Amino acid sequence: MPKRVDHDGRRREIADAILRVIADQGVAGATFRVVAEASKWSTGVLSHYFRNRDDMLLEALRRAGELAGDAQKGIGASMRGRDAVLAILEEELPLDSRRIALTRIFVFFYAEAVADPAVLAEIDGYLERWRRQTEIALRAAQHEGDVDADIDPRTVAAQLVALTDGLSIHAIFNERLLAQLREGNVLRPVIERLAAPASDRAAPR
Amino acid sequence: MPKRVDHDGRRREIADAILRVIADQGVAGATFRVVAEASKWSTGVLSHYFRNRDDMLLEALRRAGELAGDAQKGIGASMRGRDAVLAILEEELPLDSRRIALTRIFVFFYAEAVADPAVLAEIDGYLERWRRQTEIALRAAQHEGDVDADIDPRTVAAQLVALTDGLSIHAIFNERLLAQLREGNVLRPVIERLAAPASDRAAPR
Repeated sequence: MPKRVDHDGRRREIADAILRVIADQGVAGATFRVVAEASKWSTGVLSHYFRNRDDMLLEALRRAGELAGDAQKGIGASMRGRDAVLAILEEELPLDSRRIALTRIFVFFYAEAVADPAVLAEIDGYLERWRRQTEIALRAAQHEGDVDADIDPRTVAAQLVALTDGLSIHAIFNERLLAQLREGNVLRPVIERLAAPASDRAAPR
Repeated sequence: MPKRVDHDGRRREIADAILRVIADQGVAGATFRVVAEASKWSTGVLSHYFRNRDDMLLEALRRAGELAGDAQKGIGASMRGRDAVLAILEEELPLDSRRIALTRIFVFFYAEAVADPAVLAEIDGYLERWRRQTEIALRAAQHEGDVDADIDPRTVAAQLVALTDGLSIHAIFNERLLAQLREGNVLRPVIERLAAPASDRAAPR
């Protein structure tokens, strides 16, 4: 009997290698040859999985979305209140090489999405899941009294996700902003202002 | 005596034509041939001003930044308080074809900036001017008592600019979010929460 190949596992493995390459060298560095080296698979095997370079990068985008989604669900299960909201958003800030790769690949595909409906659907689906996870965390925090009962969790989730994505993109163009994000005092104060119960907001900070 | 040619004026005229083409057809549509048609100048004249297509698009980016900067300064001179802050930010939301072109060209160049230091400098300079105009409006509004005296205008400006840019990008991928931005109830509530004096925030909304 021929050996069964775990194609899904191998795709994931290759996608993880693409993301490592992007983190090190940027999207431009992620060629078939370089990814083959990083993944220890031949370019022949790679071309079995991906028709062309764009197809390969799209797989990396899906994988990045999957990894971020898993991380967000883990946070939702293990943390509570405004801290959980902050942690879900911080998953996307470019604070280490994995998340720098995430921001870079998203910026690359944002430009592609303007002209390519398949990429657009992937991007919008990813953003929608991120908004949804943030909304769920806000609702749970409302239930616990840690987020203002009067806010609309869906609207505030869309605002916080847009803010976080905007900060991530601007920070890869600006070292000073990146340093501020690393200090951790940009996102948290906004969450406090947008979502904390009135009693907390009135307290001295 | 040979006729003096106003090269700067002509560059601006061509750049405006590029922006119209991008608004209609996206960045992919802005080829030498199409821009020549839209600007009523020949491709020969265009190639006198721009070495290649990327060079032409970079000129459109500079022009977009110039137009946005002029509009922001006009707002700073004619409006006051939180309304001026909102107006400066709304200059960049994709609410009409001019501003849709602005968002599209920025998304295109964000991807380019990751690999090209010249584009990065242009992008970061633009974002820095936008943050600066927002900061100036926030300081003026603090002086008038229309913005909380306790906030740091520079930090809040960076937050609001990131939020607005994030919303603009997400809205070109999502019709529902774009419709919400058009209704005008996404950005204003955030400004109220982040910047209104405590007395205003406590008032019923």
